[in-house]
Amino acid sequence: MTEFIPPGTRWFALPSPFSMKRGGALHGAHLAFETWGTLDAARSNAILILTGLSPSAHAAASVDNPEAGWWEAMLGPGKPIDTDRWFVICANSLGSCKGSTGSASVDPASGDSYRLRFPDLSIEDIANAAHALVQGLGVQRLACVFGCSMGGLSALAYATLHPGGTRAMVNISGAVQSLPFSIAIRSLQREAIRLDPKWNEGRYDDVAYPESGMRMARKLGVITYRSSLEWSGRFGRVRLDSERREGEDPFGLEFQVESYLEGHARRFVRQFDPNCYLYLSRCMDWFDLAEYGHGDADAALRAIPRGGQDLARALVIGVETDILFPLQQQEQIADGLRAGGADVTFAPLPSPQGHDAFLVDIARFGPVVAAFLAGL
Amino acid sequence: MTEFIPPGTRWFALPSPFSMKRGGALHGAHLAFETWGTLDAARSNAILILTGLSPSAHAAASVDNPEAGWWEAMLGPGKPIDTDRWFVICANSLGSCKGSTGSASVDPASGDSYRLRFPDLSIEDIANAAHALVQGLGVQRLACVFGCSMGGLSALAYATLHPGGTRAMVNISGAVQSLPFSIAIRSLQREAIRLDPKWNEGRYDDVAYPESGMRMARKLGVITYRSSLEWSGRFGRVRLDSERREGEDPFGLEFQVESYLEGHARRFVRQFDPNCYLYLSRCMDWFDLAEYGHGDADAALRAIPRGGQDLARALVIGVETDILFPLQQQEQIADGLRAGGADVTFAPLPSPQGHDAFLVDIARFGPVVAAFLAGL
Repeated sequence: MTEFIPPGTRWFALPSPFSMKRGGALHGAHLAFETWGTLDAARSNAILILTGLSPSAHAAASVDNPEAGWWEAMLGPGKPIDTDRWFVICANSLGSCKGSTGSASVDPASGDSYRLRFPDLSIEDIANAAHALVQGLGVQRLACVFGCSMGGLSALAYATLHPGGTRAMVNISGAVQSLPFSIAIRSLQREAIRLDPKWNEGRYDDVAYPESGMRMARKLGVITYRSSLEWSGRFGRVRLDSERREGEDPFGLEFQVESYLEGHARRFVRQFDPNCYLYLSRCMDWFDLAEYGHGDADAALRAIPRGGQDLARALVIGVETDILFPLQQQEQIADGLRAGGADVTFAPLPSPQGHDAFLVDIARFGPVVAAFLAGL
Repeated sequence: MTEFIPPGTRWFALPSPFSMKRGGALHGAHLAFETWGTLDAARSNAILILTGLSPSAHAAASVDNPEAGWWEAMLGPGKPIDTDRWFVICANSLGSCKGSTGSASVDPASGDSYRLRFPDLSIEDIANAAHALVQGLGVQRLACVFGCSMGGLSALAYATLHPGGTRAMVNISGAVQSLPFSIAIRSLQREAIRLDPKWNEGRYDDVAYPESGMRMARKLGVITYRSSLEWSGRFGRVRLDSERREGEDPFGLEFQVESYLEGHARRFVRQFDPNCYLYLSRCMDWFDLAEYGHGDADAALRAIPRGGQDLARALVIGVETDILFPLQQQEQIADGLRAGGADVTFAPLPSPQGHDAFLVDIARFGPVVAAFLAGL
């Protein structure tokens, strides 16, 4: 599975055994990461980025890998997350296939890939592994933890499980728990993969690979990551040119929006491990910050800032057109952290691009992030 | 495919040949229908109901079939569509598998099922076939045409293609054309069916049947037919009882919302013909009322009432939580018909159930429909 791993990736050996929240432990596990900028002498300028489901640790170009990263416009010298000032760490999530230990990795106990023998993965495990990495890099307390999408869940887990772990948080399109609509979408994505005969209970290889299931999962993801509004403006009812049509097949690609989804699917299917996808997808369903507030997610949020002594400041960003983690969920995070004593900026953005806006609408996200970091 | 057809269904022989909009013609085709109530001497009290994608003509219980129909609470003596006053016709759409001629029917030219040799199906064909049925029942002009969901498209086609065909219209959760978001969803549903190896280019049978593809298509449908708001209140994050869980499988059914989708899929998969589903799904993508307004859908809408001399009154209902045919689309219909001279009531309803609300939120829909019909 090494083809998934960007050049320039570094590895951090996790404590062994590394206990997993829902049971079991990993032995000899590691986390893939990259860094940008320089840690200052006081070790006080570190920012950790916790990612969404699919990105690698390659958030931006670096000396070892000049290729653009998934948040290239946000991160670098003079950019909103200014690497001339900050020492930025991006971790590939535990359980992913982009270099960190996950279902596609070799289980040292057997010498074979874990596949479905990988233990249940939780958001808390992702947060704990990232915390171990940060500590391993000599940072006791982050200047700020960033969490985008799934990373927004991980950032809440990080701050909850590691008091004193960060002075500030930027939570983007996150949530304290998933709505049933989001669970339903992800359930269907997993079912698409599992129904593909080539998934074969997780025992596929590069030849017999569940491409159909992965295509379906990705297309459904893209539909929910963007917004109806954006597509109406972008595609309308425009048809493909006749030479790009699939002959006379009435069910073939005909509308531009169908071709757009097809392009997304093609770029994804062989770039992500199907079992890893299942594990990361399910861990989002399971996460519930309410567990840390005696069943009350708002109480759990209020506990995080410890009166502002621990988490002093937070920026919470949501997008009005997000159907996967709708704006009310970010408002809940902002209200809860504020009630707990943090100085919170809530930024509801009118980006048309839905849940994925943070990846593309840098014109709106950049200034908000830059202003927040300037105030730290 | 006779197992799909409710008892009590009647058949109407369409003119033969029956020309199809996009080319080709059907020979010996028929339409399944049911009626309720009595046509008055002046033949002026007829209502036609044009359905969504999947329903049969069995909208309500009848003498020949006492089983509840798909709009049972709306239709019957003393109900909002009062069959003591109205003669109500419900047609199974041309192209469906619930008794009307469609892809699953036998092609008289070959003696085999049409399957993918069925000609391209369009909303206009559905409207034209229903119009032939209405004429065949001795009705020159309807008192009112009802169209729900896909039927809302068909109702606009009916009124456009058959001037003088109806004095009034009730258009529920319809649209003048599909948004790219809706096309994307349907494209994915079709792809799920077509990727199922058992679909086999349309040559399946009851044994080798594309059950996985139909399950996926139905689940995705249900996700878009309802609303996130409804599910948050109805399911929240409630888990299934341990005895209904699928053992220790971390990817098995665990949340109530997953079980709900599973139940919907099970009830659907063997009750609808997969090829018919493909044809009906695609015809919604293709429909564009703008074709009748020189590329301008609003102009086409304005032309329908002919200053109110033809279509005098209309009720247009939409639902605030509908993500498939969002409320702005019904507002467009109401505005256009009004600008064309019809007396239009626009009823945006706050039902939490999304696109499917007309099937279940009779408490809101019933009084609005009853009041409109009382005024005719």
